[in-house]
Amino acid sequence: MRRLTLAVVAAGTMTAALAAAPALAASGLDLVTHGKPGAMPACAGCHGLDGAGRAASGIPRIGGLDATFMRRQFENAMTGTRDNSVMVPIAKALTPTELTAVTDYYAQQNPPAVAEDVPADAVARGQRIAEHGAWSRGVPACTLCHGVAGMGIGTQFPRLNGQVARYIQAQLEAWQAGTRHGDPIGLMGGIAGRLSKPEIADVAAYFAALPKLPDLPAVAPAKPAQAVPAAGDIFTPPPDSAIPNNEFGDMVRLGLNIFEDPQRYAPQYVGNPLACRNCHLDAGRLANAAPMWAAYVKYPAYRAKNRHVNSFEERIQGCFRYSLNGKAPPFGDTTLLAVETYAYFLATGAPTRTEMKGGGYPKLSRPAQPMNFRRGEAVYAARCALCHGDDGQGQATKAGAPGFPPLWGDHSFNWGAGMADIRNAAGFVKANMPLSQGGSLSDQEAWDVAMFIDSHERPQDPRFAGSVEATRATYHDEDTSMYGRTVNGVALGSTPLQPGY
Amino acid sequence: MRRLTLAVVAAGTMTAALAAAPALAASGLDLVTHGKPGAMPACAGCHGLDGAGRAASGIPRIGGLDATFMRRQFENAMTGTRDNSVMVPIAKALTPTELTAVTDYYAQQNPPAVAEDVPADAVARGQRIAEHGAWSRGVPACTLCHGVAGMGIGTQFPRLNGQVARYIQAQLEAWQAGTRHGDPIGLMGGIAGRLSKPEIADVAAYFAALPKLPDLPAVAPAKPAQAVPAAGDIFTPPPDSAIPNNEFGDMVRLGLNIFEDPQRYAPQYVGNPLACRNCHLDAGRLANAAPMWAAYVKYPAYRAKNRHVNSFEERIQGCFRYSLNGKAPPFGDTTLLAVETYAYFLATGAPTRTEMKGGGYPKLSRPAQPMNFRRGEAVYAARCALCHGDDGQGQATKAGAPGFPPLWGDHSFNWGAGMADIRNAAGFVKANMPLSQGGSLSDQEAWDVAMFIDSHERPQDPRFAGSVEATRATYHDEDTSMYGRTVNGVALGSTPLQPGY
Repeated sequence: MRRLTLAVVAAGTMTAALAAAPALAASGLDLVTHGKPGAMPACAGCHGLDGAGRAASGIPRIGGLDATFMRRQFENAMTGTRDNSVMVPIAKALTPTELTAVTDYYAQQNPPAVAEDVPADAVARGQRIAEHGAWSRGVPACTLCHGVAGMGIGTQFPRLNGQVARYIQAQLEAWQAGTRHGDPIGLMGGIAGRLSKPEIADVAAYFAALPKLPDLPAVAPAKPAQAVPAAGDIFTPPPDSAIPNNEFGDMVRLGLNIFEDPQRYAPQYVGNPLACRNCHLDAGRLANAAPMWAAYVKYPAYRAKNRHVNSFEERIQGCFRYSLNGKAPPFGDTTLLAVETYAYFLATGAPTRTEMKGGGYPKLSRPAQPMNFRRGEAVYAARCALCHGDDGQGQATKAGAPGFPPLWGDHSFNWGAGMADIRNAAGFVKANMPLSQGGSLSDQEAWDVAMFIDSHERPQDPRFAGSVEATRATYHDEDTSMYGRTVNGVALGSTPLQPGY
Repeated sequence: MRRLTLAVVAAGTMTAALAAAPALAASGLDLVTHGKPGAMPACAGCHGLDGAGRAASGIPRIGGLDATFMRRQFENAMTGTRDNSVMVPIAKALTPTELTAVTDYYAQQNPPAVAEDVPADAVARGQRIAEHGAWSRGVPACTLCHGVAGMGIGTQFPRLNGQVARYIQAQLEAWQAGTRHGDPIGLMGGIAGRLSKPEIADVAAYFAALPKLPDLPAVAPAKPAQAVPAAGDIFTPPPDSAIPNNEFGDMVRLGLNIFEDPQRYAPQYVGNPLACRNCHLDAGRLANAAPMWAAYVKYPAYRAKNRHVNSFEERIQGCFRYSLNGKAPPFGDTTLLAVETYAYFLATGAPTRTEMKGGGYPKLSRPAQPMNFRRGEAVYAARCALCHGDDGQGQATKAGAPGFPPLWGDHSFNWGAGMADIRNAAGFVKANMPLSQGGSLSDQEAWDVAMFIDSHERPQDPRFAGSVEATRATYHDEDTSMYGRTVNGVALGSTPLQPGY
């Protein structure tokens, strides 16, 4: 009787699973399992039924990859954008319907995450680049686009976590050599070109090992094979490896953790998915991206923004209140102390009360032509939407972890944030956007796109003075803030003030 | 009827005034007015009936000077310690009773404060030395010993405010030349020897003009005629003249004011007559006297004292709570911000997170012989009591303004203060005490006198842990704090905790 019940339940579950499977899945499974006799081998022969791939042969893990991403790779192979002699005849053998069926099938697989057996020292070296980048050479952290732990973001930035090392290595080398193209806005070609062959191998090892990261040895900061552009008189903060192993170091590390992941380490003060590092690149180290070492030595200072002398801690409060659209941690709170201590650590050796070269964002000269919404919209579509989304909403990982920050809308920084001032946004964009392509926009493009970004609604200014008009008059610059204006029929600044302010 | 009433009131007032005059005043007045025919001219002939002196002739203002101080000058003249051909015959003509009568008479006078007509630029230059000293040459501010605005302290440090310029100048030159002696522990001889002739003239002009200070021109920091000892690699903070005239500068100045006069600028947080500058000499500028530029770049830092990472502001809170025996200003309070901003200003250009040479107090090697109360007591009597008082009570000006800080007792720093740690006190004493004679005590003397000072009762440690034993065990070092020990029959640490802690 008991056994019978279980069998019925099991049968029911199976039926439900079959019923829930999309109509095309059967056809996909058939193609994957049997191929097309005489025209195309079975996909599973190389990639496996679950798409796990084969590490030893360098055959990629495709199970669980985004279906759109996979179809784009077929297209690239067929157009020659991607040099792949193995896949081209297969792509040609599939009808569009069949191609969709196969890619949808593999997108729905979830092969076990297998950690490849790669040398721990290579993994440790690769981790530095993958998670921290090599910003001085224009290499952002891989995880900025490929998501936390390389889990992938959207249809353009595939999962790297658990990918086959030999495959990652071969692709980076192909981009470096110019035999693979089709990367959106040329991102991977540029980045791979700035990595050495050993660094490529290290990064590949890291992602391959990620599903079960080994105990990593201490590793010195990456020594690039290529010459690093001379930093000139730009200040160099100490490396993370210089954080001491004592109570002070614990506070520095807490600050770094808050800086990189405030949702986890200071959730009570954060009201959106942004992180400090979104505006302060390279975890607050990068010159011309508001580096924290330059900010630290600048305070206490008078700020026109609130018309009094601000301590560094009050300045940090502003970031939480405006940029993170949250609550200011109270004075004396460990959150403030930790971020301050992290900035203090980064400023080791920097001269007190000095205007540091590369501090803040570059101040661009006013644009030659008046800023223009339509021109900015075109720049946005061409260079920004890939990561920040067509409607500025940003992109999260599949698991919901913060990925690319929203630039407007309910989940972005609010109208009181520094980035809501077009001057700051234009300077930041010019110097740093798109990631790895800083300086590629003209000044005019930077102004136009910054104005376009600022021409969308976002959370209310917490300094709200009773009316949008009054708030604009008191806190917003005449021609570098769109707050209070009507753009494309939207009255900017009309969002209700967040409860609790 | 009305006129009659007024006359009666006036007569009554006069009678009361005469009745209130001390018994000896009549005899003193007689001598002052008529002298002793054939033996001594009338004092008033030169000094005036009210002791105002004569600026043009260099005759000093003696009205209101301390009587004991004046009698000591007569004695010095008679013994030749003080070279004064005019006063010696007069001194010899007076009996001890008559001398007392004359000096008591003049001590009770209060001549109008007259501002001498001296060049404003000399006054401005003199002000710098008189109020700020020339610490790098071992010249403390004159007002440290002669009191706020040179109003005089006790029986040893005469009033200089409104003194005749030519007289001050002549005396400083006499000390410099070695023709005047008898200054307690050789203070004035040493200090005058470090001043140039023009500086002496400037200082004299300043005090002479003090009763009605003219509008002073801006003046560059004093350029000493003598060579300044090379500072070596000791950091030099910017001069006060570099404080900008803007909101930031206003905050720096507020911090400086709190630093020098917390009773006036932060009264709600201060529980004794001490000021920040008592321990941080030269308003926080002097190396080896816990300079604020070195302290600023040292924080945030872990402190064993409270076993966590402290921001600079929390460190300042400690000074208010312990050294000033008051209340910690809350985080975010302007008092903290102002002191922090002042320290930040002093640290202009100093490297962040660096151990600065001359920071803190010198760390003395442990004494060759065990510290000894009796030896320390003898050092104290010989070198410290002059200013800090026989019973460590300090000395205020006649008007009650803070003068020399109390070193123990109800009005001193409490048992939680850094200076209550014998190591700190010994290092401070060795480097800086007596004022202008830093380095004159042996290490052993510094340890002994620091231990002696620490062997007296003072306000309870605000960290009081329920019992003296528990507090000592938790917060006090085994052999560098006398807290919890019994010395000369006094159980140290038995003072009740101040209400409000």
